[in-house]
Amino acid sequence: MNGAESLVRTLIKSGVDTCFANPGTSEMHFVAALDRVEGMRCVLGLFEGVVTGAADGYFRMKGTPACTLLHLGPGLANGIANLHNARKAGSGIVNIVGQHAIPHIECNAPLTSDIEALARPMSAWIRTSPDSRSVARDGAAAVAAAKSSPPQIATLILPADAAWSEADGVAEVTGASQRPDYSPQAIDGAARILRSGGGTLLLLGGRALTERGLALAAGIAGNTGCQVMAETYNARMARGRGRFFVERIPYPIDQALRALKPFSNIILVEADDPVAFFAYPDKPSRLKPEGCEVHRMTAKDENTIAALEVLAGAVGARPRDAKPQQPMELAWPTGPLNPASIARAIAMAIPENAVVVDESISTGRGFFPPTACAAPHDWLQNMGGSIGFSTPVAIGAAIACPDRKVICMVGDGSAMYTLQSLWTQARESLDVITVVFSNRIYQILRGEFDGVGAGEPGRKAMDMLSLDRPPLDWVALGKGMGVPGRAVTTADEFSMALAEASAEQGPRLIEVQM
Amino acid sequence: MNGAESLVRTLIKSGVDTCFANPGTSEMHFVAALDRVEGMRCVLGLFEGVVTGAADGYFRMKGTPACTLLHLGPGLANGIANLHNARKAGSGIVNIVGQHAIPHIECNAPLTSDIEALARPMSAWIRTSPDSRSVARDGAAAVAAAKSSPPQIATLILPADAAWSEADGVAEVTGASQRPDYSPQAIDGAARILRSGGGTLLLLGGRALTERGLALAAGIAGNTGCQVMAETYNARMARGRGRFFVERIPYPIDQALRALKPFSNIILVEADDPVAFFAYPDKPSRLKPEGCEVHRMTAKDENTIAALEVLAGAVGARPRDAKPQQPMELAWPTGPLNPASIARAIAMAIPENAVVVDESISTGRGFFPPTACAAPHDWLQNMGGSIGFSTPVAIGAAIACPDRKVICMVGDGSAMYTLQSLWTQARESLDVITVVFSNRIYQILRGEFDGVGAGEPGRKAMDMLSLDRPPLDWVALGKGMGVPGRAVTTADEFSMALAEASAEQGPRLIEVQM
Repeated sequence: MNGAESLVRTLIKSGVDTCFANPGTSEMHFVAALDRVEGMRCVLGLFEGVVTGAADGYFRMKGTPACTLLHLGPGLANGIANLHNARKAGSGIVNIVGQHAIPHIECNAPLTSDIEALARPMSAWIRTSPDSRSVARDGAAAVAAAKSSPPQIATLILPADAAWSEADGVAEVTGASQRPDYSPQAIDGAARILRSGGGTLLLLGGRALTERGLALAAGIAGNTGCQVMAETYNARMARGRGRFFVERIPYPIDQALRALKPFSNIILVEADDPVAFFAYPDKPSRLKPEGCEVHRMTAKDENTIAALEVLAGAVGARPRDAKPQQPMELAWPTGPLNPASIARAIAMAIPENAVVVDESISTGRGFFPPTACAAPHDWLQNMGGSIGFSTPVAIGAAIACPDRKVICMVGDGSAMYTLQSLWTQARESLDVITVVFSNRIYQILRGEFDGVGAGEPGRKAMDMLSLDRPPLDWVALGKGMGVPGRAVTTADEFSMALAEASAEQGPRLIEVQM
Repeated sequence: MNGAESLVRTLIKSGVDTCFANPGTSEMHFVAALDRVEGMRCVLGLFEGVVTGAADGYFRMKGTPACTLLHLGPGLANGIANLHNARKAGSGIVNIVGQHAIPHIECNAPLTSDIEALARPMSAWIRTSPDSRSVARDGAAAVAAAKSSPPQIATLILPADAAWSEADGVAEVTGASQRPDYSPQAIDGAARILRSGGGTLLLLGGRALTERGLALAAGIAGNTGCQVMAETYNARMARGRGRFFVERIPYPIDQALRALKPFSNIILVEADDPVAFFAYPDKPSRLKPEGCEVHRMTAKDENTIAALEVLAGAVGARPRDAKPQQPMELAWPTGPLNPASIARAIAMAIPENAVVVDESISTGRGFFPPTACAAPHDWLQNMGGSIGFSTPVAIGAAIACPDRKVICMVGDGSAMYTLQSLWTQARESLDVITVVFSNRIYQILRGEFDGVGAGEPGRKAMDMLSLDRPPLDWVALGKGMGVPGRAVTTADEFSMALAEASAEQGPRLIEVQM
């Protein structure tokens, strides 16, 4: 077997059995190995940002890494933005990046570039396989890195001659670093603060936002009277009827500062000390109020669920301490389309156990509370702020969870970055409803223009924010890539389109014309 | 004036008056300055690969740099692939990349990344402005770097606080390094080889492929009997009736080796020692035959035209020495679509003084000779091999040369990477005909699969090469972004579509269904 085949076999043996790929000449031996080896599902994307974003979504839902297959430096470069988002989401990914045969590199052929330098900003682990007999071992090390605690992005660069020359066989994955437990002292400290009463925020991130984590937090809050919030953006959050609904720290800086003002203590449960998304003139970067103390209870590589259980025990919180939350009434909206009616339609449409990928940006800023009483679902957000994350993440989520409906909510501006996702959704018959909010403007920038003190945009500035000349026709774009779609202009039409798309299998697109 | 305004004014004063932009929050002060300052044309792209590719095309046709405006690390990352192509094309570009306000960087907000590390692989010059009073001077230094000889990619990172705080004013560009002349010894050497007769190849690249350079080469070839070829890929080449037609070194390795076999001397005129695009098992990376000597006459930072004039004088070559070339007969083709009939239709359709951007890959491999007798035009190719270069480069070329028709020929696989280009073409009413060759496969990879010794692709491998499930509907994709299009299935239809699109103004798309 050659190096490429030894790598494919090693990946499959280590449980990495899904490959999101956009290959080129230097990766043809990896592609050829797919014909000889059973067990690797290879999914083609027509742009690398689709590929890396899909791997992010896959990890978020499956909890184990997929691999990507990318063509040399520029192929990796096209995937960097969504690797940035994946890194911030804590997703483990094994990137396989082709490279010229080693003696060819010094020739400076057109596609030659410094691949390791391109990989470094987003990868925690990088290696270029020196020869075919090292490839399997290097692949196993990449998987171990991707599966370590916290999970990481590992980039294995595979020279063409290492792929096509003879290899020794398959390698075993060993030594993925394990998640440490937690710090009993940190939990003692948290319990002490909670018992001291008044003005304490339990700020949840990561695994604290699983169904179990939220239930524990609900008990602790009911018992101690502390407030509970989630970070502004979360990689995955269990939500819906019967689950503890927590608000997130708002994105707009003034609202965020107001939301945190009451607190004299913030306990971080796999969350970060809250910071503003951007800096603004004469406003703080750190969101906590003056004098507020921030205490870390668990970090990203610790066992947050076990820690919350210990904390609940320490404060004497039981499940029945959880305060009942006011259920919101669900009904299909009618009348004009606006953020409120859109949110109610989505809340009605979310099917049991759905995955909601949220890149609704300005349109969706108020979607969170109205969807709290939808059927139970997971809610995935953009962790790195690089737009164009959602349509690829929806691909990965749908492949990781073929029995769950995926609803991808995306602004028109964001959807344009990785619109090639629609084609992969069609090819793989993925059960994804893409809802495009077509307001024909980078609306968030319109708000930020003011926010950063730039005043009112004039004509030339507005030209850089508006997408209305020409308008994008999302139904045509969907059709062009094999995804049936329809445009809606009223809440009634939107409700009907959602209900129909939910009842059907396979990819659908709804253009919400605002 | 604030830092952003001082930068915009400095750019305009230095002749950088076109900005290809995809801005975000951190760039709003730059955008706001556009309202206050006359003279900067700002063109919005809905994906950063469009923006950087457009800047490449602009430089190739205008000869002076445009600037880009990109949003933080991920925005730059999305533009890297086409910066790679631009760097290999020798295009000068000034990238303005927003950054968080400096005190905000340590907060590790979602969009934080190591921007300088991302910029380094493709930028010859990088600087982060430390404060608002440095911005104008740093901008002037970036322009000087972009305009130096050879031209460079310069990346200026602009922190938000440096953009919004008070600046001192405008800065002057000084000290762009000047193109040195040439080496008289190298020309003497070339003349000696040419006079010694037999087996000499004059290999042209860069400015040697301008109309004047080609005319000089034609005279030298006619006088000395040397052969003349161009490199496989060329940033810009003057072609068409009345201009000296030179073949390029073929892309397929076996053809390339055969083409160079006869030569015992190769004289490099702004060209590189020829290498294979990829490495292949048991084939050489360097294309020159054994024993062939390679002599550099001029490099990329030298005055190739002056050098060719001296060389012509040294060998006694005059314009009338140029051998007449057999003109090919031009006629609209009829019958089925195939590479030959497509090439003849294109040759007929190219209008006087058109710009042809060629990313036709496998379909267009034979387009070169049949278009030699088209009306005079410039022919632009992909220098870095990262596909998705052509539709953005067509934007930049059309903006640089508003009076010239641009014909962009692109394979369907390539066109998908940066299809957002169509929207910018529609918004700016650019006079671009995009011809998409829709063969529904990465056909080049089908060939390379064999070439690298991977044998015949089986079903799973073919899934990674084929684009046929679902088929892409390019007319719908064009419609979705405001570009009228039509699909053609015969040579007659293609001819008519080309003739019509050539006669009209504004963007058009033709899907050639093969």
